[in-house]
Amino acid sequence: MKTKTLKNVRPMGAAATDLHIVDGRFTASAGADAEVIDCGGRILIPGLVEAHTHLDKSLLGLPWYRNEVGPRLIDKINNEREVKVSLGLDPQVQSERHAILAMSHGCTHIRSHVDVDTHHGLAGIEGVMATREKLKGMIDIEIVAFPQSGMMTRPGTAELMGEALAMGAELVGGIDPCGMEHDPKGHLDTIFALAEKHGKPIDIHLHERDSLGWFSMEEIIARTEALGMQGKVAISHAFCLGAVDRAYVAGLHEKLAENRIHILTTAPASAPVPAVKELNAMGILVGAGCDGIRDTWGPYGNSDMLERAMFVGMRNNFRRDDEVELALEVCTYGGAAIMEAEGYGLDIGCNADCVLVEGETLAEAVATHAPRKLVLKGGEVTARDGKCVVEAP
Amino acid sequence: MKTKTLKNVRPMGAAATDLHIVDGRFTASAGADAEVIDCGGRILIPGLVEAHTHLDKSLLGLPWYRNEVGPRLIDKINNEREVKVSLGLDPQVQSERHAILAMSHGCTHIRSHVDVDTHHGLAGIEGVMATREKLKGMIDIEIVAFPQSGMMTRPGTAELMGEALAMGAELVGGIDPCGMEHDPKGHLDTIFALAEKHGKPIDIHLHERDSLGWFSMEEIIARTEALGMQGKVAISHAFCLGAVDRAYVAGLHEKLAENRIHILTTAPASAPVPAVKELNAMGILVGAGCDGIRDTWGPYGNSDMLERAMFVGMRNNFRRDDEVELALEVCTYGGAAIMEAEGYGLDIGCNADCVLVEGETLAEAVATHAPRKLVLKGGEVTARDGKCVVEAP
Ligand SMILES: [Zn+2]
Ligand SMILES: [Zn+2]
Repeated sequence: MKTKTLKNVRPMGAAATDLHIVDGRFTASAGADAEVIDCGGRILIPGLVEAHTHLDKSLLGLPWYRNEVGPRLIDKINNEREVKVSLGLDPQVQSERHAILAMSHGCTHIRSHVDVDTHHGLAGIEGVMATREKLKGMIDIEIVAFPQSGMMTRPGTAELMGEALAMGAELVGGIDPCGMEHDPKGHLDTIFALAEKHGKPIDIHLHERDSLGWFSMEEIIARTEALGMQGKVAISHAFCLGAVDRAYVAGLHEKLAENRIHILTTAPASAPVPAVKELNAMGILVGAGCDGIRDTWGPYGNSDMLERAMFVGMRNNFRRDDEVELALEVCTYGGAAIMEAEGYGLDIGCNADCVLVEGETLAEAVATHAPRKLVLKGGEVTARDGKCVVEAP
Repeated sequence: MKTKTLKNVRPMGAAATDLHIVDGRFTASAGADAEVIDCGGRILIPGLVEAHTHLDKSLLGLPWYRNEVGPRLIDKINNEREVKVSLGLDPQVQSERHAILAMSHGCTHIRSHVDVDTHHGLAGIEGVMATREKLKGMIDIEIVAFPQSGMMTRPGTAELMGEALAMGAELVGGIDPCGMEHDPKGHLDTIFALAEKHGKPIDIHLHERDSLGWFSMEEIIARTEALGMQGKVAISHAFCLGAVDRAYVAGLHEKLAENRIHILTTAPASAPVPAVKELNAMGILVGAGCDGIRDTWGPYGNSDMLERAMFVGMRNNFRRDDEVELALEVCTYGGAAIMEAEGYGLDIGCNADCVLVEGETLAEAVATHAPRKLVLKGGEVTARDGKCVVEAP
């Protein structure tokens, strides 16, 4: 039924009220024949936004993968490229399992980086595109063509990136221009050229720390400015913004703000991280994601962006309620703004993408992240009591 | 029934077998009339050990506390002392709620710091002692008399500490000798004198970072050595061991190992932390805890030591299975060894304190920390399917 009334609901923790949904959007009223859903005074938040993950590479649904991988970034990358073959990983099946898990937790929007390399070609992109089609209307999936194994170091990758973008990937990905690619000019010139040619935004993985990361970030900023790509570039991880030298970082914050470059964080406990509150104060859009979950990189993660809001809070030492609310904002409005998700929010006219959460306040909802009572996407139920309405393959 | 057979169970993830329990201990066999519990091939681990928490101060079961507290340590301490009065917090009720929550997750042993101050006197100690008596046989609780508000700065506190120890607190607590007490010599001389007089071990909170923490730690080590208290001193948090200068820290590790001083970590995401793997390699005992949960200090935490093993893993960048297993060891055997818990483990003759967990491997059990199927304490069921057999008040 397309017409619904959410009875006794507290939008963002405000006083209890009724909300109405007609044709998938919030409206001022609904007909008397609307389906009435008693929300029991629960808090309603807009759909959770997973703004940095890797749908093509989880090992969900497979036997446990015993991780004995080496400590370096390149060990993990090389291992993964090989294990994908030995395990016969199907990117379509894995991405569907992953997306359905995210939906069960109230996620309505996903930005996924998807590997493009000369070993697996466009299999990842095709698989995630098939999942996107299969789950159409239930979750929005945005695809970043991601040169995980390197582009400059593996000839033929840039061409595959171009094909991925022509096929329907929405963004150009990139990776550590110095640490991984050993050719910052070559790498950045190539991805910005791809972005220009295909008229698509950029989201680049930047793990480089301290001054190496600052250098790469400044090169990204310079190209964003030169090409007039303000508002169209995002940097994921940005560990270098977690550096000890806060004066230098403050200068970077200014340049990021000037060029409307967005930051995506996964708030890892074991790496330096961008300071969410500082970025927010500068007006820089911040989103968050779980990054890869339960994959050959590591065993953790469950695609729950309400739990991720807790991680963002814990990593940033957020203890006050207003701080925890900011962490939640990052995992909802922040990611949505970066993804330019149209009609996002709980206002009249917005898409009825929303989640009923447990807890007296928003901070309690984050801290406990109990199974979600109800999830709607475009006004239709996609999950109930922590279970998605569709079964994972 | 005191005689049980755990059928089809995998101790620590090993091959499936049957385990037998007679009179609360693991035995080689049980009579034919033993109660048979089908474990469905699940992994069995020994009871989880919460080795650093504060049972007297959670706000569990109360209306949500909106946290608007200032950023300094002293803001939180002063706020808490006052809020305890304004909320009318009952340490007995709160500690019972907290302990039952821990039990629901498979915790069988708790070391709790309990506030002793001139404002609340021994009310905290009395409350937690009452809870300990109430839950006797279901969970072991060890009490640290803890001068949270300062001892040197608040005359009369040291005398109360002595009373707490005489009443039955098992350990002498302490807190930042420089940062909080402004008198490292006075503070440490006092707590070591209390330890000597009452013949009790020490567990001191040390949040001080870098060289300030190193100084305090060296003062603790010197007294441990001078008084022959090797093996009887633990340092909680020990953020200064997470300092950037690893050469200096390595020197401290050596001295800690020589004096058999134990380290308790909560693996916070927002502070420097002791490196679990380095400590373990030095033979230093490491335990873990959730610290305070859902209190006036912050909203997070649920007393789940299997989830805490995940936090220990994430904070230490543990990704390989053997690393994740080490994180779990810290939350079981490590804490138990520090608490000198007699008969701990799954061997024949050990107390049947154990937890059936979900997952194909130990690492999966940690990463997913799904509700525990079954928890036994001394061979008796204390929790099932994530629910404690006794109701919280
Ligand atoms: Zn990533
Ligand atoms: Zn503590």
